[in-house]
Formats: sequence, C-alpha cells, structure tokens
Amino acid sequence: MDMLWNGWGDPAKAAPLPDAVTGLLGQLLGVVPRGTRALALDDIRVPGSPLDAAASGALADAVGGAAHVRTDADSRIRHTRGKSTPDLLRMRAGDVADVPAAVVLPASHDEVLAVLRACARHGLAAVPFGGGTSVVGGLAPARHCEVVAVDLRRMKGLLDLDPVSRTATLQPGLRAPQAEALLAEHGFTLGHFPQSYEWATIGGFAAARSSGQSSAGYGRFDDMVLGLTVATPEGTLDVGRAPRSAAGPDLRQLILGSEGAFGVITAVTVRVRPVPVARHYEGWRFASFEEGATALRRLAQDGPLPTVLRLSDETETLIGLAEPAAIGSAGAERNTGCLAVAGYEGTEEETAHRRERAAAVLSACGGTHLGAGPGERWAHGRYAAPYLRDALLDAGAFAETLETAAFWSRVPGLYTAVREALTGTLTEAGTPPLVMCHISHVYENGASLYFTVVSAQGEDPVAHWAPAKRAANEAVLAAGGTISHHHGVGTDHRDWYAREAGPLGVAALRAVKRRLDPEGLLNPGILLPVDGPAG
Amino acid sequence: MDMLWNGWGDPAKAAPLPDAVTGLLGQLLGVVPRGTRALALDDIRVPGSPLDAAASGALADAVGGAAHVRTDADSRIRHTRGKSTPDLLRMRAGDVADVPAAVVLPASHDEVLAVLRACARHGLAAVPFGGGTSVVGGLAPARHCEVVAVDLRRMKGLLDLDPVSRTATLQPGLRAPQAEALLAEHGFTLGHFPQSYEWATIGGFAAARSSGQSSAGYGRFDDMVLGLTVATPEGTLDVGRAPRSAAGPDLRQLILGSEGAFGVITAVTVRVRPVPVARHYEGWRFASFEEGATALRRLAQDGPLPTVLRLSDETETLIGLAEPAAIGSAGAERNTGCLAVAGYEGTEEETAHRRERAAAVLSACGGTHLGAGPGERWAHGRYAAPYLRDALLDAGAFAETLETAAFWSRVPGLYTAVREALTGTLTEAGTPPLVMCHISHVYENGASLYFTVVSAQGEDPVAHWAPAKRAANEAVLAAGGTISHHHGVGTDHRDWYAREAGPLGVAALRAVKRRLDPEGLLNPGILLPVDGPAG
Repeated sequence: MDMLWNGWGDPAKAAPLPDAVTGLLGQLLGVVPRGTRALALDDIRVPGSPLDAAASGALADAVGGAAHVRTDADSRIRHTRGKSTPDLLRMRAGDVADVPAAVVLPASHDEVLAVLRACARHGLAAVPFGGGTSVVGGLAPARHCEVVAVDLRRMKGLLDLDPVSRTATLQPGLRAPQAEALLAEHGFTLGHFPQSYEWATIGGFAAARSSGQSSAGYGRFDDMVLGLTVATPEGTLDVGRAPRSAAGPDLRQLILGSEGAFGVITAVTVRVRPVPVARHYEGWRFASFEEGATALRRLAQDGPLPTVLRLSDETETLIGLAEPAAIGSAGAERNTGCLAVAGYEGTEEETAHRRERAAAVLSACGGTHLGAGPGERWAHGRYAAPYLRDALLDAGAFAETLETAAFWSRVPGLYTAVREALTGTLTEAGTPPLVMCHISHVYENGASLYFTVVSAQGEDPVAHWAPAKRAANEAVLAAGGTISHHHGVGTDHRDWYAREAGPLGVAALRAVKRRLDPEGLLNPGILLPVDGPAG
Repeated sequence: MDMLWNGWGDPAKAAPLPDAVTGLLGQLLGVVPRGTRALALDDIRVPGSPLDAAASGALADAVGGAAHVRTDADSRIRHTRGKSTPDLLRMRAGDVADVPAAVVLPASHDEVLAVLRACARHGLAAVPFGGGTSVVGGLAPARHCEVVAVDLRRMKGLLDLDPVSRTATLQPGLRAPQAEALLAEHGFTLGHFPQSYEWATIGGFAAARSSGQSSAGYGRFDDMVLGLTVATPEGTLDVGRAPRSAAGPDLRQLILGSEGAFGVITAVTVRVRPVPVARHYEGWRFASFEEGATALRRLAQDGPLPTVLRLSDETETLIGLAEPAAIGSAGAERNTGCLAVAGYEGTEEETAHRRERAAAVLSACGGTHLGAGPGERWAHGRYAAPYLRDALLDAGAFAETLETAAFWSRVPGLYTAVREALTGTLTEAGTPPLVMCHISHVYENGASLYFTVVSAQGEDPVAHWAPAKRAANEAVLAAGGTISHHHGVGTDHRDWYAREAGPLGVAALRAVKRRLDPEGLLNPGILLPVDGPAG
C-alpha cells in the first residue's frame, strides 16, 4: 500500500480530533477552522513527464523494462517531497513544483548501478526513495536538472541470516515491519522502532542515522549496522568485515548519515537479537522536568538502562501527548508534573531484575510509580502522532516537531533556548504556540530533546513557520546542541549543519562526494550545498 | 623518562628469561644463543641532521624557541620507527635509515598548526609522535623528503572535566597513566588499559583506534571518544557536539584510525567513568578453545559481560603466556585445556551480581572455576609481555604478535587459517614456530584473535619473518577477517588494508587526505600509499 499523498500513513487509520482537543485549540491557540475544501489527488495538475524517449529507454533498460519506470501523475505526486509539515502544507496547497520526472524501480544492486549510469548519461539527478518519510527536506533536491526518484521497494529481501554471529543482511527497500517479519521467522528482531516504523525502510534508517524509541536497549540504527553495500556512480563500495576494526577510519560511519548524497545503499548488514519474551512498560511521575532528567541521567550513567526511556516536560504531560492513545480521554489529575515512560524487554528473569533495580533508582530520584497504565497507553499510541498531526492540520492548526541532542550539562540550557526561540518567534508573529518537549533518547554523556510545536496557522503557513524554524536552529547551535539527533540534515538543516561541521569538515565531505559522485547527480543539494566550480 | 631505544619500556624493569624457558627454546625451537655483543646507543652512527638553518629556524619559531627543536643523535634515534619486532631488530642491528631529521616539540594546538605550516614551506614531512609504540610501521613514513617527528609530550594537560556529562578533554601527549592520574583526582577513570598502557598516549590511542584489555566493560577507545580537535595543513577541524547525532556522517570516525595521515590530533574529549570500588579477576578452564569461545560468545550476546574477558588457546595456556607473571614457575597440571580470565569492576553490589550471573553461564558452558589466582597473575603481568619479547630477542629467539577480528561464525576458520599460514611458512623456512593465540576482545557479533609467534631467528631475522607475516595477512583476508583489530594499518598492513577497503574506499580516503593535506606532508605512506599525480 502507498502512503497518503498529502499526509501520513494509511488513510483508513485517520481519526478526527477529540472534541476536547478541538475546543482547546480554539480557546488556547486561537485556531480557526479552515474554510476551504481539501484538494483531492485528482485535483492536482502535474505537467507531463519531461523525460525524453532516450532517457526513458535507458532507465527502462537499467531496470528490466518500461514497467518499472513510472511517469504517471499519481506515482510522481506520491514521490514528491517527504513528510515534514511544510512538505504536507505544500502538497495540500497543490504545490507540486518538486515533482520528479519519473519514478524508477530497480530490483538489484546491479540495476541501481545501471540506473546511476543512465542518469549520468542523460543528465538526470537521482534521489534514493525508501519510505518517503523524511521530515527535513531530504527528498527535495536542488532542481538544476530533472530528477528521478529511485524507489527501492522491489529490493525487499533478507539476503543472509547468520544465527551464530547474530547478523542479518537486509535489502534497503524493506519497510521496518517487513524486516521484522522476516527476522521473526528465525526468532530474531532488529529492535528498531522509530515513530516512522510502519512506513520507513532499512535503507532510509541507515542513510539518515535513524534512532528508535527502544534505543536505550537496542541502540540507534547506526549502532546496529555492521556492513553496507553502496552503489555509486563510480562503482561499488562494500564495507564491514568485522564488528570493530582498527583498519583505518570507519567507512561505515562515512556512509551512515550521508542521506543518499554519496551513493545508494543497496544492502545493510545489521546485528539482530532474539525476540524478547518479556515486555513491560510503565509510567513514572516526576515533580519537574529537571528532576526527571536527573533520574534518566542516573540510569544512563550508572545503570541499569531500561529498553525504552523517555520523559515528557510539564506541558507535554499536561496536554497528554506523552500518551497519544489517551488524548481526549485523560483524567486531568493524572497529568501533573512530568511523565516518564520506562520499558523493559528481554528474558523474564533479566527484565524483572533490571526493572527492580531501575525502579529503586527512579524512586530515589523522586519518581512516583504510576503502574503499567501510562506505559501501555504510550506503547499503544507510539506510532500515532503523525496521524494526530494530519488531524490538527485538518482542523486549521499548525503542528511540527524538531529535535536535537547535547551533552548532559548543556541539556537544560538547550531546552530553554529552543523553547524561547519557538515561543518568541511565533508569539511575535501573532500565533502564540504550545511548545512541548520530551527527552527521547539517553546516553551516558548526554540526551536528545524532541520538541512539538502547535499553533494557529498563519496566512501562508509555510512562510509563517520559516522564521520560527530558523530561530530554533540558531538556538540549537548557540546552546551547544547538534542540529539533528535523528531526523537528519536534508535541505532544512543544511546551512546550520555546515556551521556545525565547520568549513574543513564540509570540505572533507565534499571531497568524498566529488570522488564518489563526480557529476553531482546524487541527491543534489541534500546534506551539502550543490558544488560550485571552485568548491 | 624515555623508553628504551632498542626495546620496550623502562630498562630497569628488564628481566632475564627463566631457565625453564631458555631450555624450552633450545629444545623445542632450536634457538641458538646469539654470539654477538648487543650494540649500545653510543655505538650507533647517525649522520648529522640534514635540516638547513632556514628550516630549523622556522620550526623553532613555530614552537617558541630552538630548545624545542632537537637534532642531537640521541633524540633522533629515540624517534626512529616504533616497537614492532622488525623495528627492534633493525635498531639492534644499528640500522637507523629511518632516522628523522629533527624532533620538534609543540606545546599547543596553534604551535602544531605553525609546525605544519613550517613543514609545508620547507618541504618536510611531519610524523605525529606520541608514545612511539606503533607495532605496524606507523612511524616509518615514505622517505621522499626529510622527516620531522612531531613529539607531543609537552601537550599533557587535562583541558576540561565535566562531571555532570562525565566527559574530559585531554591533550594528546598524555601517556595513559598520566591521564588516569589526572582523572583520578576527580574520581574518574578512562578505563583504557591496552598492553602498551604504560607508554602509549591519548593521541595515539585515537589515531590508531586502540582497544584495551578492559574493552568488554569500558569499550574500545573509539567508543570513548566524543570529540576531537585536529590540526591539519589546511586549518583546524573540530568535531563532536553531542554523544550521538544524525547530522551527517560521523566525522569523529573519519579521524579515528587516520593514523596521523589526515592531521595531528591536538585534543580528545572522552567519556569518563567513576573509579571502580570493586575489582575481581578470576580464572576459568575450558576443555577446548572451541568450548571456551562458545562460552565467551554467550556472555557477549546474552550477557552479562565481565569488564575483562579473554581466552587463551591450548598452546598459550600450556606455555603459560596467559599469565606472563607466572612463566617459569607454573605447575604443569594447571596448564591443560584453555585458560579464560574474567575480570569484574564496578560497585561492590553490581560486580557481585554480574560475577554470579556470568559464573552460571561459564559453568553451563563447561567452564571450571579456578579461583582468583590465575586472574590475579594475569592482572599482575598484563603489561609484561613486551619485556618478555626483549628477553626472547636477547636469547636469540624471534617473537612477534599480530591480531585480527571477524564475525563469530568466521572465527574458527580464521583461527585455523592464520595458525597454518604462520606455522607452514616458518616451518618451510627451517624455523618451526610455536604459535599461540587468545581471544582478546569480544562483541555481540564477533571477536578478535591475537596471535603470538615464537621461533628461532633466521640468519637475517627481518627478511626471514617477512614471508610469514605476508602469509598471515593473506590468510586473514581470505578467511574474512579484518587486517587489524587494534594495532592499526601503518605501513605493514597497508597493501592488505587497501584490498579490505576496496578501490573506492581507498579513493574516498585519498580524497579526504588530499583536501586536508594537499601537499602530502602528513605521515606519507602511512595508511594509504603515497599519492601519485594521477591518484
């Protein structure tokens, strides 16, 4: 099934906002219901594909026939941009300026190489396309030439499973649930459950350094990757012969996070773990975000670490976004202070022991145990937030998320700086927002902060949001955070990323890009600015 | 104190071989005592420094005066090559062909930048020099021009300590014990204890992706690094604003393992941990290497992991090298089967619990608990092996080590292939060796193998060893291992590393090198072959 063209996920799962929320939007944020009818897919006017017969033919030859080169409007619209709120707002407005010339569907590594050769020969840019879930403009390349979306959905095999080493080699087009199903046949799991889980793909996780909600227990996706095969315009790169090595720089870590700008990832070898027998999610309440953050830090530094560990600030707890499944039904008395969710997965014995020791730490840090209820509600609603966003947009509200990470000592300053940047900018623009935040991932030395912003839409909602996003990016850098903890760079973070990496860091990456993609056909303008002649 | 110029460590710690070992060498390996007197440092003839006055002056200006530019024979000899057995044999033979033109001692990042500018201006190559402990030819660059050793010993400060984030920023010239002493003042430890611990430096650990004997508990050095500052001929590179990030490729992992070829590391931000209260090391015996390896794999995959975990094969156990402190005194009955050492460090309670659970796993896998004795003897002798090598060389024997890593399913084949390559080549050459091995580091998905070879010396011992080393390298690649798990690439592994990384991997690294070091003055010929005009 294809994802909703102008929103998230499966249209059948769309749910209207609870009346309580609609009321809140009007009273608190001044959201006014939209007066205009939503556009249907058929209402969208897309110019015919600009691909000439020679280029079409070359692409068809590369992928075993014209059936795998799609130039119909429906396919091209569904491969236009990603799923950031500005992306959705543009689509809802009928703006398909970023539409690709064609969608090509290779079935193998060699076919991807052939596609890249055909693109080079015909002056086309190539955008690797997995689940299409980028929220940072990662699928909206610079348009100095026509663009082909290289959709990897046909590459959905489990290529190898080594139960002794506990490794699996997966093709990039596998959606996470498909990958989990293939691994489950052998008793294994990847343990990677980001909010985009239901739609995002293995290749996309690697290309964008995804991090899942169970990262405390299973690690980030870049922790899981042991090997990569990459198709580039200059040939094949194969990296990873051992879990760890002292043989030079770690080339895996050069490909991870390269967002399709260095090559198309065609196989990913990952570590896998036995499917857990026991699963237990529970809620804890802390009096303040600071108190809760200290508790999370203690678990991250001195253990034991739950498998899932997150903490909502006061606002997110109050609104109930910490448990999306419960929105609109929550008893208000539950929603004071800050809600933390701790989840434990593993064997019965190990899980019970870990949970008991973690509970002692959380209690000692001031936490109140709330039982399984809030944990289960969080787990039930863990993939629901993007649907909620669609409903908010339908209701005339604006809703977007952004995230960062820093060392622990900088987390409080980062939290304040980003909140103030968002609140200040949007208030000044006449749409005072609700800004909510949670700690989504913890490490020994730091943590990530994930912000959700809801406000009234401005007249031109994309333009209205832009200064707030810029202010948040500036605040992140000024407070010592990284411009993205798990969403990636894309085009939306590119200028701030360049400052974070520094001129010499950017120069080093540009040198790699030029060597692997000398004609600059891969995702131009994503991650790095388009290379000028003096570069 | 300076290290012994033609051997390891502190001359006062040198110890003669026990008679039992000397006898064994003669009877088992046909080792014949050397008839020639050892050369003294004063016997070595070094040509005068080829540095002209302009170059000397420029270097002196860079480092705040001529006192920090050394051109005396003693200093230059002590900065000639590293500590591989071929390196030592060449020094013992009076071969100082690789002697640097000068040793320059910068005191700051800016002085390193100035040294690199002076080198560029005067056509000099620059070799970053920390502890001088490379065992892979990492300090013997190509000699297409004169070479300056950039000794970092004056850069030995603790620049920052963040107790909340548990991070420390260290200068590169700190030897590991100096770094530990500085951190201990604040109650912290790095937990990095490789065999070279007493002499190696923080910068060297980072540049060569060191891995310590406590890696199961504290991680490899590349796991510990959170930030790096690097001086390059093109300026400064500063990387690492958060523990983990999705902002592009991980540039830290591009610098780690770059072995001085991309720049001089001038500051390293590492994670630190509280000094452990409890320490317990113990021995376990397994009937076979295979049985023991399975036990280690179970701990690595399903936990709990000890802080130290290693397993000697039957030969290493029999010879007693698993406990260097006990060599020559061991009761033979103890030395059957395969000795494993498990060490636990942490709080009293956590350590006791972990030890108890690990013991259950080790017992279930066929292990016999040997009590603390073998563990304590191993811990006591953990830095002794390089001294033992000196004594073996003195006695006329040849002794060298090499190491690799692979995914678990490939470990048995890798073990057999490398043993056979070494044994076959050296037996054919008339010096049948003893080949010993241990698993030195374990991961969920694989392990490292560390081999020790002892044989009679050939007529020309360096030339005699070369075919065996080549055969071992070939065996490593053919059996699916990485060419180095923790020693690095240097010049000794360079050609095999190029095959492991593949032509496009090498091309990408070369592109980075060219951008950061366009004149190729940094450690030329280390890691990558010297760049030709067509590259």
